[in-house]
Amino acid sequence: VLQCSVVGATGYTGAELIRLLAFHPQVKIAHLTTRSEEKIKASTLVPGLPKGTDYVIQKTSLKKIGEDSQVIFLALPHTTAMDAVAALRKYDRIIIDLSADFRLTNVRDFKTWYGVSHQHKALLKHAVYGLPEFYRHKIRQAQLIANPGCYPTSVILGLLPLVRERLIEFDAIIADCKSGTSGAGKKLSMKSHFSEVNENFNAYKVNQHQHTPEMNQVLSDAAVREKVSVTFVPHLLPVTRGILSTLYAKLRQGVKAAHVLKAYEKHYHSEPFVRFYGEGSFPSLREVQYTNFCDIGVQVNESNGQVIVISAIDNLLKGASGQAVQNMNIRSGFAEDLGLLN
Amino acid sequence: VLQCSVVGATGYTGAELIRLLAFHPQVKIAHLTTRSEEKIKASTLVPGLPKGTDYVIQKTSLKKIGEDSQVIFLALPHTTAMDAVAALRKYDRIIIDLSADFRLTNVRDFKTWYGVSHQHKALLKHAVYGLPEFYRHKIRQAQLIANPGCYPTSVILGLLPLVRERLIEFDAIIADCKSGTSGAGKKLSMKSHFSEVNENFNAYKVNQHQHTPEMNQVLSDAAVREKVSVTFVPHLLPVTRGILSTLYAKLRQGVKAAHVLKAYEKHYHSEPFVRFYGEGSFPSLREVQYTNFCDIGVQVNESNGQVIVISAIDNLLKGASGQAVQNMNIRSGFAEDLGLLN
Amino acid sequence: VLQCSVVGATGYTGAELIRLLAFHPQVKIAHLTTRSEEKIKASTLVPGLPKGTDYVIQKTSLKKIGEDSQVIFLALPHTTAMDAVAALRKYDRIIIDLSADFRLTNVRDFKTWYGVSHQHKALLKHAVYGLPEFYRHKIRQAQLIANPGCYPTSVILGLLPLVRERLIEFDAIIADCKSGTSGAGKKLSMKSHFSEVNENFNAYKVNQHQHTPEMNQVLSDAAVREKVSVTFVPHLLPVTRGILSTLYAKLRQGVKAAHVLKAYEKHYHSEPFVRFYGEGSFPSLREVQYTNFCDIGVQVNESNGQVIVISAIDNLLKGASGQAVQNMNIRSGFAEDLGLLN
Amino acid sequence: VLQCSVVGATGYTGAELIRLLAFHPQVKIAHLTTRSEEKIKASTLVPGLPKGTDYVIQKTSLKKIGEDSQVIFLALPHTTAMDAVAALRKYDRIIIDLSADFRLTNVRDFKTWYGVSHQHKALLKHAVYGLPEFYRHKIRQAQLIANPGCYPTSVILGLLPLVRERLIEFDAIIADCKSGTSGAGKKLSMKSHFSEVNENFNAYKVNQHQHTPEMNQVLSDAAVREKVSVTFVPHLLPVTRGILSTLYAKLRQGVKAAHVLKAYEKHYHSEPFVRFYGEGSFPSLREVQYTNFCDIGVQVNESNGQVIVISAIDNLLKGASGQAVQNMNIRSGFAEDLGLLN
Repeated sequence: VLQCSVVGATGYTGAELIRLLAFHPQVKIAHLTTRSEEKIKASTLVPGLPKGTDYVIQKTSLKKIGEDSQVIFLALPHTTAMDAVAALRKYDRIIIDLSADFRLTNVRDFKTWYGVSHQHKALLKHAVYGLPEFYRHKIRQAQLIANPGCYPTSVILGLLPLVRERLIEFDAIIADCKSGTSGAGKKLSMKSHFSEVNENFNAYKVNQHQHTPEMNQVLSDAAVREKVSVTFVPHLLPVTRGILSTLYAKLRQGVKAAHVLKAYEKHYHSEPFVRFYGEGSFPSLREVQYTNFCDIGVQVNESNGQVIVISAIDNLLKGASGQAVQNMNIRSGFAEDLGLLN
Repeated sequence: VLQCSVVGATGYTGAELIRLLAFHPQVKIAHLTTRSEEKIKASTLVPGLPKGTDYVIQKTSLKKIGEDSQVIFLALPHTTAMDAVAALRKYDRIIIDLSADFRLTNVRDFKTWYGVSHQHKALLKHAVYGLPEFYRHKIRQAQLIANPGCYPTSVILGLLPLVRERLIEFDAIIADCKSGTSGAGKKLSMKSHFSEVNENFNAYKVNQHQHTPEMNQVLSDAAVREKVSVTFVPHLLPVTRGILSTLYAKLRQGVKAAHVLKAYEKHYHSEPFVRFYGEGSFPSLREVQYTNFCDIGVQVNESNGQVIVISAIDNLLKGASGQAVQNMNIRSGFAEDLGLLN
Repeated sequence: VLQCSVVGATGYTGAELIRLLAFHPQVKIAHLTTRSEEKIKASTLVPGLPKGTDYVIQKTSLKKIGEDSQVIFLALPHTTAMDAVAALRKYDRIIIDLSADFRLTNVRDFKTWYGVSHQHKALLKHAVYGLPEFYRHKIRQAQLIANPGCYPTSVILGLLPLVRERLIEFDAIIADCKSGTSGAGKKLSMKSHFSEVNENFNAYKVNQHQHTPEMNQVLSDAAVREKVSVTFVPHLLPVTRGILSTLYAKLRQGVKAAHVLKAYEKHYHSEPFVRFYGEGSFPSLREVQYTNFCDIGVQVNESNGQVIVISAIDNLLKGASGQAVQNMNIRSGFAEDLGLLN
Repeated sequence: VLQCSVVGATGYTGAELIRLLAFHPQVKIAHLTTRSEEKIKASTLVPGLPKGTDYVIQKTSLKKIGEDSQVIFLALPHTTAMDAVAALRKYDRIIIDLSADFRLTNVRDFKTWYGVSHQHKALLKHAVYGLPEFYRHKIRQAQLIANPGCYPTSVILGLLPLVRERLIEFDAIIADCKSGTSGAGKKLSMKSHFSEVNENFNAYKVNQHQHTPEMNQVLSDAAVREKVSVTFVPHLLPVTRGILSTLYAKLRQGVKAAHVLKAYEKHYHSEPFVRFYGEGSFPSLREVQYTNFCDIGVQVNESNGQVIVISAIDNLLKGASGQAVQNMNIRSGFAEDLGLLN
């Protein structure tokens, strides 16, 4: 049984982590922390906990966390996690960082998109990007796992077989993504004010979202020696949970529908958390909400050489906390789906 | 044509006022004001304005407003409107205050429920409660109109015929009210955060809402020489606009369904903005959203002496800005529905 | 390990039952049935099932179900379940009927409210009303469990301590209830059409809902020798899951807040699925959605002798399928919360 | 004052037409019809009508409609309007058909996409496609106006300046469109069932929607001598009103951002119902709901030669009934925005 802690447990991803860890058969919760001086009962944030569960979220020193935990989940805001990671390294624990701080290998990109110089560049080479479907072998031995962003998880999983099998042009990919509001967290803003979001819909950060370099980095890694560049337009849906990405790409010369289907079957057949629907059948958010699955459907238009891919995830699970637990399971030698099905 | 101004025009009721005034055939907009130093184009808050409309919301002195306007609408936060009203009195304009500052005749009640001592008690006796269906004759000559709260409008209109005709017991009235989120305005709060309100529903300020004394005051006035006391439980609906109130009262000895129906017909037959559905037929929010109507249905259970009344309004129109314009129309001798139908 | 079947598994409660049974550690699914000739993969209705799960919902004879199952859940429409129950009795299995067919002990009430004469009156005396918090001792030995309706579960649990301890008047209870749309099932109707329900809210079947006699029967049973009569007004919320009931009652002479609180503590302290919030704190739907909990808060107004109770449940879980599994657990000697926490 | 009738007035577009016509200063409503034998009060479908308005929707012969009306709006289902149009032609009235029956000039396309052979091919050459921003001069004299589909209105207006000025490649256009549910009308379907649509989001008819040929036809007409082909993926939003289209196109060699902006300014500067936001600023549904506006924003990426356009409309107004009234205004010589602002 692993001693696990969550640093920054009061947000939406934190609450989801608490829920997953509380019911995980191989986990004992060591610490749940907050920067606030006030203690918070976890049951007020995670309604489904059994009566009598008395986890408390409270201010706790990194020292205590480092000493008492075997796995440490960081659910801190971007740019604030890196110092905590650096401080926790000496305890030699498994660190799973849900922030963006260790996802980008290029520190200039980090500066450009997050507005802050990276303070712990030396650590970047130890970080493994925690997308099991592509980096599982590295995750098995990683001490620092950079848990992927929600949009990148959805977009990368949607495109990975096409890129790895080199079936599409790498410079003409469009990702038209639609996300529920929990992805923006608990931070108050007119953009998350009920009267503004309800019955509304809009694009935001058009071609300027900070998840763009993350997608490009991982897809370029999958492309080997070639650069993949995605045009990414996120939209805000008036729902709480879920991301649905509609992806458009140009097939390379001679690529047929059969090649496309074969690629998805090959790469996802044995993936526990990717469900491929085949051609002409597409997921809704409903199919993935409250699950750790990424569901994918495709349509190939051989006449004009276009492929449309639709992928869907629950942004708080496969897009954040569920994937973090999946990474813990892989790293710890547990069944990959342990505690992730209900 | 009346010169009209809106003080505090950037909130939801302010935007609704701008829309109504912009299309009102007997109104010219003089000033639209904000405390912010920044100028705001009205068209960014009121999407339906014609192309080319160039109203600007900007910081403006009360002096200028007082000098240039014949009717002044105040859409300021509670407790901050009273000073503005006091300062504007010397210009002898028609003032329609959408805040609660001049609604309560009892200053101790004001202190109790709004947490602040009233600073301009002498003005209270000049204020007329702007509910046309009860105080129309006074509104015709008022220089200071205290525009009713949204919940009180819905509850009082639902009960008024029963109280005026003394058909119900006055000490056992229950008002179970459900409101959309725009009633809480634009102020950011976890209680208005989309991820918290969406797919959710809850009561709040149970028996402790500041609109309680307002309901009791007006209904007691309608009861003459007797005190009416309402148990009021507001709830927050995951919709933007509308209030639906389910009202329960005990019929007095010998009162029959026919008396109840007759009372509603009598009092509302010639009201331009109250639609009575009769017995067994009830309004939905849908019927009143984006209108200035208050729709009412009743059910009488003669066997146990209970009457159930359901009333519905659009909280931003009949519950705020629409009623304010209705009051202006009455005060100015216009057709009462001028600019309020579309 | 129990062999369990679900008769009528394609509706919302059926899907929820499949999910609960699929992950229940002491259950093996025997049959999932539908009247349709077409086979349906359970995974299309229950998104969270593990990859590779291959339950199929298909037409199956009652004979086969009776022979192969130890526990049979019926999720059939009201008035159609009774014949199936009668036919299944000879196999001497545990039958948990989610319809209303065996809830009412008075067959005239059944006729009045469901429009059909009861065809199997002799079976009624064998049926136990499956509300564990009141009838647990009978459920332990029942072969036919009439699983409660969603509104009655919420209302009865909200009032039970007050009635059993005789703290309130029994003839002046008001239940103002608000339900999500999944309670109305999958049957198509303008009343469930998205464009009609969305951004809308309304009462329906005012004082005429078929759940009224069910509430009165159980609460009268709790009152012993006295008749309890509830005024019940249901409303339709624009959310999918959850019921929140606001209950109003009159305290008996001399009853204080302390008596009320003590009653709830006494009756619910050791209940695994009722969480009492104490005075002045109230549940939202959020706290109970996707859980089997019933959450309750109260407010006592000693000055006018009124008590307000707010209770909330997930209508598909504590209001239907979760409670059915809770009943199975009780009847089968399992831990009562087995398979009901995640 | 024009005598106007609506044939098929009970649907969502019918109700919207009634509302617009009832308040239009130059219109008198002659007939409102339904196929049903039952009479329906218009006020039950159009809540905002003044008290005392007594329009009735009732079965009425085409003869009577033809004789009594100067303008006839048809709001009938696709494939059923053409016979009515043919029958009404002899009365030589202005016919504005909101169905798809006279939109496609190619009858094979009609057969392919609507599944029915066109029965009145000879009439097609008399029909004018009612998009004022492109065909205003023809609309001025048309006796048969084929009112555009909702998606085509949004997509065509978004792309028209780019196509007419030949700034983009015509074979690589993507239209990722998101629509509210009222676009699907009142027809009951699991796809419009509240519990299925709420908190959900999905694509449908991927690359197979019947509005595709309509877009291609009009854009090809704008392209003169070249064929425009749009990849069109519609999605269903959990909102009632509005369409937001995110459009992706490839700039032709040498085209700069300045050319793009100039094209929009040129074509839309004097359009009363198109509002161009310039570069980097984009509309939400909120800005266009309950208005007849089409709002458009663009972003040009000169480095990779891509242009992103976002356009938004209210599907029931600019996408249907509002545009129909705009067409009537143009055809009748009224101010184009008469009765369309409020």
